[in-house]
Amino acid sequence: MKQYEMFELSFEGVSPGKELVAEFSHGEKRVYVPGFYDGNGVYRFRFLPEEAGIYRWTANGESGAAVCEPADGTRHGVVRPNGLHLRYSDGERFSCFGTTVYALAHQPDELVRKTISSLKSSPFNKVRFCVFPKHYDYNHNEPELYAFEKTDGKWDTSKPCYQFWRRFEAIIDELGKSGIECDIILFHPYDRWGFSRLTKGESLEYLDYAVRRLSAYPNVWWSLANEYDLMDNYTLSDWKEFAEYISDHDICRHMLSNHNCFSYFDFSISQVTHCSIQDIFVCEVPELQRKYRKPVIFDECCYEGNISFGWGNISAFEMVNRFWTAVISGGYCTHGETYMSDDDVLWWSRGGELKGKSPARIALLRSIVESLPGDIDYFPEGVGCLTEEVIAGYRENGIPKNLIHDFWVKGLCSLPAERVKGFILRSRGVTGACMDGSGCSAYIKYYGRQCPSFDRFILPDGSYKVEVIDAWEMTRTVALENASGEINIALPGKEGIAVLAVRIK
Amino acid sequence: MKQYEMFELSFEGVSPGKELVAEFSHGEKRVYVPGFYDGNGVYRFRFLPEEAGIYRWTANGESGAAVCEPADGTRHGVVRPNGLHLRYSDGERFSCFGTTVYALAHQPDELVRKTISSLKSSPFNKVRFCVFPKHYDYNHNEPELYAFEKTDGKWDTSKPCYQFWRRFEAIIDELGKSGIECDIILFHPYDRWGFSRLTKGESLEYLDYAVRRLSAYPNVWWSLANEYDLMDNYTLSDWKEFAEYISDHDICRHMLSNHNCFSYFDFSISQVTHCSIQDIFVCEVPELQRKYRKPVIFDECCYEGNISFGWGNISAFEMVNRFWTAVISGGYCTHGETYMSDDDVLWWSRGGELKGKSPARIALLRSIVESLPGDIDYFPEGVGCLTEEVIAGYRENGIPKNLIHDFWVKGLCSLPAERVKGFILRSRGVTGACMDGSGCSAYIKYYGRQCPSFDRFILPDGSYKVEVIDAWEMTRTVALENASGEINIALPGKEGIAVLAVRIK
Repeated sequence: MKQYEMFELSFEGVSPGKELVAEFSHGEKRVYVPGFYDGNGVYRFRFLPEEAGIYRWTANGESGAAVCEPADGTRHGVVRPNGLHLRYSDGERFSCFGTTVYALAHQPDELVRKTISSLKSSPFNKVRFCVFPKHYDYNHNEPELYAFEKTDGKWDTSKPCYQFWRRFEAIIDELGKSGIECDIILFHPYDRWGFSRLTKGESLEYLDYAVRRLSAYPNVWWSLANEYDLMDNYTLSDWKEFAEYISDHDICRHMLSNHNCFSYFDFSISQVTHCSIQDIFVCEVPELQRKYRKPVIFDECCYEGNISFGWGNISAFEMVNRFWTAVISGGYCTHGETYMSDDDVLWWSRGGELKGKSPARIALLRSIVESLPGDIDYFPEGVGCLTEEVIAGYRENGIPKNLIHDFWVKGLCSLPAERVKGFILRSRGVTGACMDGSGCSAYIKYYGRQCPSFDRFILPDGSYKVEVIDAWEMTRTVALENASGEINIALPGKEGIAVLAVRIK
Repeated sequence: MKQYEMFELSFEGVSPGKELVAEFSHGEKRVYVPGFYDGNGVYRFRFLPEEAGIYRWTANGESGAAVCEPADGTRHGVVRPNGLHLRYSDGERFSCFGTTVYALAHQPDELVRKTISSLKSSPFNKVRFCVFPKHYDYNHNEPELYAFEKTDGKWDTSKPCYQFWRRFEAIIDELGKSGIECDIILFHPYDRWGFSRLTKGESLEYLDYAVRRLSAYPNVWWSLANEYDLMDNYTLSDWKEFAEYISDHDICRHMLSNHNCFSYFDFSISQVTHCSIQDIFVCEVPELQRKYRKPVIFDECCYEGNISFGWGNISAFEMVNRFWTAVISGGYCTHGETYMSDDDVLWWSRGGELKGKSPARIALLRSIVESLPGDIDYFPEGVGCLTEEVIAGYRENGIPKNLIHDFWVKGLCSLPAERVKGFILRSRGVTGACMDGSGCSAYIKYYGRQCPSFDRFILPDGSYKVEVIDAWEMTRTVALENASGEINIALPGKEGIAVLAVRIK
């Protein structure tokens, strides 16, 4: 037994009258682990030890004990929310840099291997993919295996296809070895087989099995759906029931959210760990953080590519721009790639090889973010800190006396409510601040598509190393080695520039 | 007297008891033209003949007649609204391509000459500039002349500075010879002299004089203010009174509007001929057209440049992108340039030479637009035609039966109202259609920052020449010479691409 690695008990047959539940105890702590049938008369119980030391177990009338070796630093456990950010079980920060390969698990073995290999050498540490096969342009291939067998020509959720699940788990396991989180999409609407038409009971039976099998994998996330709001056989209360069901039965309380086409899911319910969003307005991270007080991940912000759909043909530059904007605003962004290909293998759907220019730039951003001593939080500066909500408050309750002559407050309060956000969007750049134990220790300002040739900053207490970063050319240029107080930085006057000031003493 | 050219009567002294009004008649039509004092004992009456033939006049107790020669095609008269577009008096289309040199008239002669020369070789056919000097970063030079003299150290609006006005008119006249319209900004807030603090009575006295002097110039437009809403000594009803005053006294009924910082002016009042807007959302042209049913000009959409202000450092590409978006949506856009300069002469404020890369690209757009047989109107296509208003209507009155299962209608109606616009913005590209007498004769689709590698079109009746235009590289490539019906066009998969289909038979 190793800390943060799945531990499995298996039994041939199950003693009659015994519940399919194992008990694991560690000191005073007890965990009840539901088991599952894996075919060929074998039952399994999967458990994830998150602490080192001695675990005792009883299952199927047997009992035993195992010494859990402490993690050697290569595994960090389960990613869970930590305020507006994410942490592994061992306290390590998880800066989420996701990508999307919806039908990853429904491709031939060779292609799956190639995709996993691409992921391992990419900057991405999370990948979104579906349990059920996907029917959509550029992905009409028939998978070899499905999650269930059929009975009388109809999917039978009481008959899991064990081979499918073993193959699916092998992908999760293999990705986990490289520190890649699997954002598993449980339902989705792009279907020609009938998986989007399961009854409520069948859906719960499927979820029950999935949760029993997969919960002990440290790198599992639950995405209730891709574009949940395009599925018309579930109501909003069904989705909430699914969230509750998973949350109640998942022994590890993995990350859980639900991805929209049109309307965001209700991220306020307690089972939802983070906002999983499809939208292009990645600059709204701070607004969503204020509203939900949870981590914000723009899991779909269009894809780098050149297909004819508007959601699938933004430039590599724009993808990089959206990553920087989301990340410097204190949130996270997810990549996808839709370049036309002679072999019809488009990354976003089937995987294969990454062809775009954004991943190398996203790698630079990730390396910068991970080099900082803490998570990046949105740092309100100038007009940007006057949010729609703040202005709405002033309108309703009156402008506070000390702000009554403030240029921006006065101006924004004079606008029709629906134009406030647009006006705020005109403001320049976005700034993030990074706190270590002693307070703010780094500031990073990203200018997006603004092209200033200089900027002025007033650095708080301390001395800073100041760098100018070209997000596209991937250059980092030290502007000042030992700066303090008011500084004036020359900038290249082009799109995609950032200034990073890290406190050195 | 020449059609569309200012005709002036001048008198030394004015007979006592005579009103300072001249009467011009042409057949049954009579026009009363108020005169003005121009110093040195000289009074002038200025008139713009818009028809050829014999004009009779009486003024200051004298009378006479003049034969107005028909225009030779080099002058077209006054620009006025024509539905959502603009026409000269002679019916010629005016496709407005503006720029901005706020303090043009307050620079030394040599610089003014250089600016005029730059304008003449630019693609711009309208320039916004102020009557009053401007105090702002990069423009602190003291002008030689002001619109008025002082009495007891205070501006005296009853004492115009004739030299100022003659110099100001010389600029209007010179620009007029090259077909450049002068969008004259009557008030503005950036002031250290006191011109933004005139009393209401002084303001009207100034407007009266300006209108008497300038109304007969064919190429004058009235912009009540630059950023009217930053001036706190006028109320909204003062602005409306100014609009009325000008409209009532301007014998030519020139174009008239008012430019905002925060809140758009009330473009619905009858004196306002067009929407003059500061905002970055140039894609909202169709919405503004529907609301006001007047031409829409984005007179400030940020400036191409590299100063540190967010409004003054968009890239040349983005400026071109905003022009294309506004124009293909059926509106107009205005340029400005703010590149740092060793001599501190930034085009947007002082003029001089154009340094940016957008003007050459705007010239291409203008040449394309002017080559078409009619004005471009927004052509709703797909999700883009579902506007916020349409969706709001469906929400209130229910979705029409035939649309109840429509993907976009259903989806957009499911969104919180404030997110509808954002969602619509995600849609791809914008399409304009150009009507000649026989119906639509050209379609133009601009993809903005979308990068498709192909697109499909269904061409209506007729045969079309189809071109792919690269707005930035300034290339036009014929894709199909004689296309009809459904076509598939290969595109370069980069930002700034348009497809133009012109009916050839």
